[in-house]
Amino acid sequence: MSTMRQLVGEVLRARRIAQGLTLRDVSGKARVSLGYISEVERGQKEPSSELLAALAQALDVPLSKVLMDVSALLAIEESTDLASVATLRPDEIEASAA
Amino acid sequence: MSTMRQLVGEVLRARRIAQGLTLRDVSGKARVSLGYISEVERGQKEPSSELLAALAQALDVPLSKVLMDVSALLAIEESTDLASVATLRPDEIEASAA
Repeated sequence: MSTMRQLVGEVLRARRIAQGLTLRDVSGKARVSLGYISEVERGQKEPSSELLAALAQALDVPLSKVLMDVSALLAIEESTDLASVATLRPDEIEASAA
Repeated sequence: MSTMRQLVGEVLRARRIAQGLTLRDVSGKARVSLGYISEVERGQKEPSSELLAALAQALDVPLSKVLMDVSALLAIEESTDLASVATLRPDEIEASAA
């Protein structure tokens, strides 16, 4: 299962690409270093609330929408996790409980 | 306008109170120090994705739901911000542009 950090990065990257913007463009608009944004997009850095707000603004998307997208991706992963539990055979469930 | 960090804290606190749990209860379940959780709830500390996942689990709520609640609160604040712009008088808009 992905961490929230990884999904935040994916959502921000998808938004940027959809708008035809480069890392350099976003870096200039948000006044955040290119390397840092790149690390955030790859899920390697946990962005602060302030940085996330600046990135969302540079991408011209409300931060609430970014979070909603992250929430939706997480919900899919959470339901997939449940699905994988549900398809365990009884002996596998016993084994994992042992 | 609140930061995302403050709204995350508010949502976590509301969940904890709704379940009749103390900070000590959540601290024990999530294996996170009581002081740290208290700071997160007050919006003073930016929780990592891993910590947020642990807190959500301790509160028995999917992390996706926590994020959706935060997103909804943010959306209200964002629309209130727009509303406050819309109710400026023309001379106030000119003054703020000066």
